[in-house]
Amino acid sequence: MNKLYIIKIGGNVLDDEPSLKKFLKDFASIQAPKILIHGGGKIATKLGDQLGIQSNYVKGRRVTDAETLDLVTMVYGGLVNKQIVAQLQEWHCNAMGVTGADGNLIKAVKRPVGETDFGFVGDITTDSVNSTLLYFLLKQNVIPIFAPLTHANGTMLNTNADTIASVLAISLSKHFDVRLIFCFEKTGVLQDVKDEKSVITNLNKSTYLKLLKEGSFHDGILPKLENAFNAIESGVKEVLIGEHTNLLANTSYETKGTLITLS
Amino acid sequence: MNKLYIIKIGGNVLDDEPSLKKFLKDFASIQAPKILIHGGGKIATKLGDQLGIQSNYVKGRRVTDAETLDLVTMVYGGLVNKQIVAQLQEWHCNAMGVTGADGNLIKAVKRPVGETDFGFVGDITTDSVNSTLLYFLLKQNVIPIFAPLTHANGTMLNTNADTIASVLAISLSKHFDVRLIFCFEKTGVLQDVKDEKSVITNLNKSTYLKLLKEGSFHDGILPKLENAFNAIESGVKEVLIGEHTNLLANTSYETKGTLITLS
Repeated sequence: MNKLYIIKIGGNVLDDEPSLKKFLKDFASIQAPKILIHGGGKIATKLGDQLGIQSNYVKGRRVTDAETLDLVTMVYGGLVNKQIVAQLQEWHCNAMGVTGADGNLIKAVKRPVGETDFGFVGDITTDSVNSTLLYFLLKQNVIPIFAPLTHANGTMLNTNADTIASVLAISLSKHFDVRLIFCFEKTGVLQDVKDEKSVITNLNKSTYLKLLKEGSFHDGILPKLENAFNAIESGVKEVLIGEHTNLLANTSYETKGTLITLS
Repeated sequence: MNKLYIIKIGGNVLDDEPSLKKFLKDFASIQAPKILIHGGGKIATKLGDQLGIQSNYVKGRRVTDAETLDLVTMVYGGLVNKQIVAQLQEWHCNAMGVTGADGNLIKAVKRPVGETDFGFVGDITTDSVNSTLLYFLLKQNVIPIFAPLTHANGTMLNTNADTIASVLAISLSKHFDVRLIFCFEKTGVLQDVKDEKSVITNLNKSTYLKLLKEGSFHDGILPKLENAFNAIESGVKEVLIGEHTNLLANTSYETKGTLITLS
């Protein structure tokens, strides 16, 4: 099967113009099918403040009310997404900016109201993905650039970018050998959180379980690792956790982050 | 050749929620390949006011400075476009929201600075269109929904929605029998501007020239007619000028607007 890179970037890249430019130039130069998923960054909060839209959090998680939904639809689906697309086009990468609503690429279920009403938030599974259309787009050398938005019942929904990346990776594993890359602020998963040089370069399930038992991992990395092993066990060939500045290494054989595989 | 409907709507539909909903339901029900192009409506101006972005006009035409470009990219390319797409998905129309940057569908040239610097405005011709990708999307039953934005040299550009509709129609005439429909605020081209019932139902080139000579047309309709005959003479099979409420009639044989043909 052909290789497919599914790459997720967050606020630390998006909020810094030179970093973003360098990253996009690297992304454009990857000579393989690829998909980018971006988060929102600080601009949504900044614009929300200007418009007097209050951020509302319950137990540390943002609630997406109608005003906030319009805000993230504008900023993530419009401004951030199209600026990325225009720049990639300049680097001869035929990017196409999409949300889950476009081409019904990711259909969500609005999160049911439990103890908390999170508002316009979409939950997704691998069944949510229109992998047929994605496969056809990739075959046409069109590079999908996902904003973290999905849809259900005629409305847009806010959806976590990490989850979108995982779900896409699992769903497209039937067509490709997928390497799912999470760009974050550290070089990789660290053996010692205070030592940037202590990157665990290869991590398989048995080593993970052993280190987990020994309490070696920093709390912050645990959800990412759970997410990564979930993807691996659902058919994704490799998950890589690393820094956005090392994208070109991390899409080659000489990876600089943490490469996670089943065995 | 198969029929293709290319339909342009403006602010009068977009700014009125019930009208838009009815229009989109009608649009979704058209059983043929189709493309929608939307303008912006009042929401960009309203949001610009809230953000303190001043509208700047030279000789009655808006100048797109960097702040205004961000505003229209957010509002046209994000909010308006994705709300339309989400609603169409609800009516089982597999809409995909795009700008000219996405998939390099319409590559523009930034308008050269002459007497006036219009800022981030894109000029386009039929050579600007990636008709291969559009044709491919339509073959997959994907319905492109265009925001009035294009791109060049790594940046988004503001582009007139009527022009985008015409250029798409001309460019796709090599693959389809195109009917280009301009939805506007009147039932059609009127023989007497004060009488809504005086719609000219069929207008060909020779009748047009005769009526033009007699001074029959209201000034406001002249640019639309010039635009229409330009499209007709460049390969578009039919241009229809009519009201958005009559969309279903105007995509059938019993048109209620003005159907413009070469002969």
